[in-house]
Amino acid sequence: MYSFTNDYNEIAHPEVMKALNDLAGKRFTGYGTDGLCKKVADQIKQRIGQPNADIHFFNGGTITNLTTISHILRPHQAVISVVGGHIDVHETGAIEASGHKVITVESASGKLTPVHIKKVLAEHPDEHSVQPKLVYISNSTEIGTVYRKAELVALREICDAHGLLLFMDGARLASGLMSTVSDLTIEDIAQLTDVFYIGGTKIGALTGEILVLLNPAIKTDFRYSIKQKGGLQAKGWLLAAQFEALFNDDLYFQLGQHINDTANQLADFFTEKGFGFLAPVESNQVFVILPNSLSDKVLSHYVVSKVCEPTADTTCLRFCTSWSTTSQDIEKLKQTFNSLI
Amino acid sequence: MYSFTNDYNEIAHPEVMKALNDLAGKRFTGYGTDGLCKKVADQIKQRIGQPNADIHFFNGGTITNLTTISHILRPHQAVISVVGGHIDVHETGAIEASGHKVITVESASGKLTPVHIKKVLAEHPDEHSVQPKLVYISNSTEIGTVYRKAELVALREICDAHGLLLFMDGARLASGLMSTVSDLTIEDIAQLTDVFYIGGTKIGALTGEILVLLNPAIKTDFRYSIKQKGGLQAKGWLLAAQFEALFNDDLYFQLGQHINDTANQLADFFTEKGFGFLAPVESNQVFVILPNSLSDKVLSHYVVSKVCEPTADTTCLRFCTSWSTTSQDIEKLKQTFNSLI
Amino acid sequence: MYSFTNDYNEIAHPEVMKALNDLAGKRFTGYGTDGLCKKVADQIKQRIGQPNADIHFFNGGTITNLTTISHILRPHQAVISVVGGHIDVHETGAIEASGHKVITVESASGKLTPVHIKKVLAEHPDEHSVQPKLVYISNSTEIGTVYRKAELVALREICDAHGLLLFMDGARLASGLMSTVSDLTIEDIAQLTDVFYIGGTKIGALTGEILVLLNPAIKTDFRYSIKQKGGLQAKGWLLAAQFEALFNDDLYFQLGQHINDTANQLADFFTEKGFGFLAPVESNQVFVILPNSLSDKVLSHYVVSKVCEPTADTTCLRFCTSWSTTSQDIEKLKQTFNSLI
Amino acid sequence: MYSFTNDYNEIAHPEVMKALNDLAGKRFTGYGTDGLCKKVADQIKQRIGQPNADIHFFNGGTITNLTTISHILRPHQAVISVVGGHIDVHETGAIEASGHKVITVESASGKLTPVHIKKVLAEHPDEHSVQPKLVYISNSTEIGTVYRKAELVALREICDAHGLLLFMDGARLASGLMSTVSDLTIEDIAQLTDVFYIGGTKIGALTGEILVLLNPAIKTDFRYSIKQKGGLQAKGWLLAAQFEALFNDDLYFQLGQHINDTANQLADFFTEKGFGFLAPVESNQVFVILPNSLSDKVLSHYVVSKVCEPTADTTCLRFCTSWSTTSQDIEKLKQTFNSLI
Repeated sequence: MYSFTNDYNEIAHPEVMKALNDLAGKRFTGYGTDGLCKKVADQIKQRIGQPNADIHFFNGGTITNLTTISHILRPHQAVISVVGGHIDVHETGAIEASGHKVITVESASGKLTPVHIKKVLAEHPDEHSVQPKLVYISNSTEIGTVYRKAELVALREICDAHGLLLFMDGARLASGLMSTVSDLTIEDIAQLTDVFYIGGTKIGALTGEILVLLNPAIKTDFRYSIKQKGGLQAKGWLLAAQFEALFNDDLYFQLGQHINDTANQLADFFTEKGFGFLAPVESNQVFVILPNSLSDKVLSHYVVSKVCEPTADTTCLRFCTSWSTTSQDIEKLKQTFNSLI
Repeated sequence: MYSFTNDYNEIAHPEVMKALNDLAGKRFTGYGTDGLCKKVADQIKQRIGQPNADIHFFNGGTITNLTTISHILRPHQAVISVVGGHIDVHETGAIEASGHKVITVESASGKLTPVHIKKVLAEHPDEHSVQPKLVYISNSTEIGTVYRKAELVALREICDAHGLLLFMDGARLASGLMSTVSDLTIEDIAQLTDVFYIGGTKIGALTGEILVLLNPAIKTDFRYSIKQKGGLQAKGWLLAAQFEALFNDDLYFQLGQHINDTANQLADFFTEKGFGFLAPVESNQVFVILPNSLSDKVLSHYVVSKVCEPTADTTCLRFCTSWSTTSQDIEKLKQTFNSLI
Repeated sequence: MYSFTNDYNEIAHPEVMKALNDLAGKRFTGYGTDGLCKKVADQIKQRIGQPNADIHFFNGGTITNLTTISHILRPHQAVISVVGGHIDVHETGAIEASGHKVITVESASGKLTPVHIKKVLAEHPDEHSVQPKLVYISNSTEIGTVYRKAELVALREICDAHGLLLFMDGARLASGLMSTVSDLTIEDIAQLTDVFYIGGTKIGALTGEILVLLNPAIKTDFRYSIKQKGGLQAKGWLLAAQFEALFNDDLYFQLGQHINDTANQLADFFTEKGFGFLAPVESNQVFVILPNSLSDKVLSHYVVSKVCEPTADTTCLRFCTSWSTTSQDIEKLKQTFNSLI
Repeated sequence: MYSFTNDYNEIAHPEVMKALNDLAGKRFTGYGTDGLCKKVADQIKQRIGQPNADIHFFNGGTITNLTTISHILRPHQAVISVVGGHIDVHETGAIEASGHKVITVESASGKLTPVHIKKVLAEHPDEHSVQPKLVYISNSTEIGTVYRKAELVALREICDAHGLLLFMDGARLASGLMSTVSDLTIEDIAQLTDVFYIGGTKIGALTGEILVLLNPAIKTDFRYSIKQKGGLQAKGWLLAAQFEALFNDDLYFQLGQHINDTANQLADFFTEKGFGFLAPVESNQVFVILPNSLSDKVLSHYVVSKVCEPTADTTCLRFCTSWSTTSQDIEKLKQTFNSLI
């Protein structure tokens, strides 16, 4: 069965594989101290317009999130997330295991707003409860929605007003940035956040994420935190080489465009057929709501995730496109789908 | 100004003070290994009908909660509480600081039910999220409501059905048990929970809580946990002596009756005057809702806690009675109140 | 059997008990926000010559140590202690449970020196190992020795040279300061450390320690840490009242003098009898080394701690004097002892 | 400069790279639930003679150690290691960060013995100190020595006698097992330990370690721990494919033989030249002791680690051979070295 189950089910984009194979026979020093890591870090800093940023290479999202958040927070401080945020429900309590509460707020759009932040601050006035310190957002979000520039600016402003820091989880940053509804550039994100990461695993890397530390206050001793949490890769250059390939000629952004295009193709088809969505389709994840009987048929032909049951009669399925998904794959799915209705 | 702000604003009931003064000149071994601790533990075990229980003495609620919960849970396991439960909002993230998520559910009554537990279990199906393992309840609850026997039996049953453990925070157990609406005895609680505690600090002790471990699976090495968390009192007998006094002739329960009676006097008065409550008055906390202007006047004459603003025009104040609150104190408050309306 | 087992086996000095009894009928606000706490904090600040210090009340040593150390350190930082320091072996891994390594160094004197610190710094050069940040010492030490002013100045200097902080555990501070070999005052300690505490539990308090934060960099949000670790006493004034009594007319220091005097009486006697010690007797703990046969006889007449067996034929016993130990108690012990030889 | 600095400075053995390249175009389910992970796990279980073992794939040593140790231990329990063990000094306090003390003992051989364990048990008798529960050893050790079967049997016996568990860090297992002095097989290790891992990163894998859980008591919910600590690889099959290649025709063991052979060539040469070693050369690490002047010259021609200065006049250098080190590389080093003497 063809799989739309996620965006990390194939090994890597051919350019990434080529870059890795080209490393054969070369020798490097360990733990990210090599020249290739330095070179790629410099390229990334230039690309995002932040020559003073600190760049660190990770090999997965959860370890990036838990290392970053536990590095920033003091023991009594907490991070704010939407209910259903990755750190809330998909990381087995990794943040709490590092000692910190994840304060959650309901958000139908999957996005945080200043109204949410103000409410949290009002509810945590003194030392009898935790101290909110960090705002955690994802772009695109867990339900595929995408931040607009004005929304991010508003978050930046409320963070500044209250001494909060802003962290963007960019596991699906390529898709978020290349959304047709997005007016944000990667330079904007680097200007508006204190720390964010550029996800690779879900957009054609073998595995890898680049963490970008912008706020000087959180840069000190960061490598200690990476090492302590078990995330310091002995072969850091493995990660650097992949991102060199992905940022060559902006391949990273082209792949983001591609996965959004195929998702939009799919969304348009579902709309045409009269089906609705859990949230607006703005990136590479399509959360379509189908009658239960049709959902069952689809599940017998495709590997997709069953997300929830919005009503007794309907099921929400998630179709996730990948860098390797082609327009032909979508066309074929349409035919299959038509035959099932 | 007379204070109804809480139930721990005086030193201790005279019988407790007498018991402490009587210790002068006596010598004891340290860390709860003395004969008095053993004697009082035996008395408590007999009183609750659980000769095989393990008894541990603590000097406050938060340290009791965090020690017990972190002792029971493995790193990936979580505790379920109502939103607003003591461990959720009044302990500065103590449970998360010990590594564990507090999974919260909304409950207007302040009480957990099997419906809540089932929902939590359904939302935490596998290793990508934490594993719910412990159910945390308080009796009386944070909003002064009280569990009925049928409710506790129902929680016991769902816990048994799903391998969950049940922990009752008894910081206000005397008040909870002696509620006019309560059909629970302390023996029932000892039969229906895996662990609970008998709070002393809020009912006439200088300071102290007795933790009762009932489930053999959680007894092993418990003293290691008390010591590690900083709660093992060098002078354990200080705590034992107080509870000996409190359980002599069931003084503990008489005081519970007394604080409920004075609270009911107050509640009847407010009802008579036409004011409503945030939650039914079932124990020694009265959460009355007043017009803002009246609330302001009350706050200028009495020390009471401002809890919330249910509407733009109203304020909820908490009046908390104490073992030292007299009927005369209530009558005086009524007079003052009448003069303010 | 008369007990020399420790210095916290009786309830409290009569002046402390009087102060507590005098609190009856008074009402206070909770969690250390009351006027008595403020008043006593001001007195302490004046007494130690540090008007800008922050004062916090605790009810025991382990909770003071773990709260202070975990508040100060970032996740990758560690604390340095002698092997056998209280945080190393008597607190069930409380510091590690808060996430931090205790780096230990052997020291026959029980004291840390700049040589130890330099060695530790040399062995922890980069992010592959923890970062030493805090120096933990006790005065008097676990083996009863006492810091001289020059030793403390030397520690201060090496700390300053390497950005380390200095924390003195003062569980037995009264005894340490009043040692005949001590040239340190409490004002000196307040000038030379970043944080220290004034122990009460082992010198006549019911229970209690006063933590003094001197370095402004570690003051921020300290009450959050106390609350989170379970150490924020609901009735803070209970602790304040005791220290008011102990610092009235310098009773605290008189008691320190007294326990040292009785210990010295004992030490002189043992010396006279030809027995040696594990460490020089400088405070209220006497670690005498006896032939095994004599040690056994002593243990059948007195409650004292068996510490170690320096050789196959000898045993080290700890005699610890208390505020309630009298010269008569010592004389009686001498007689008994003479009858056993 | 040619590097003998470590055994993970090249990308991967050609067979491993081939296996990875062969994955192109294939799709897998996530997080180790795919068929390839299952197939390779079965192969490993068969190879080690433990059909009931649980197999988990990791991508590095520190994350494997911290996940395993924190999964096994309850909060008050500790792990025993030699001073200088990887978890003691090379992981930035990762074990302490998960809440557990690493109890260390000095060992000139780099190996733990029953004598060490007994001493630790005697020093940790009750709840005032941590409870030793896990014994951590490495094979080969940090100083390149190798366990004999009798030594491992003796450790197993003392563990059984005291309810301790035994964990072998196998980051350099291939080298350890193929040592000329080793009489252990991988089947022996699987029989004698409760858990061990088969390191890949240091013997030709791109990156990867296979954890083998043997004791049923520690298997439960292990995937929760992997996910929580950030080690659950989205693309588990990446790791499986590498080990399939490494265990095909026992390539893993052949590479272990090869790196030992080249190390022995080097050791023989140094011996011939009259130089001694920090520890017997038993695996792929050669810790040679050279006069300082010669050491300096060597360091200007080769990338090797400076380990310590055994005396004022001598330096210990570590030469580490790799799967890609050839006999020609060694011959060339000999020539260079001869020219420097």
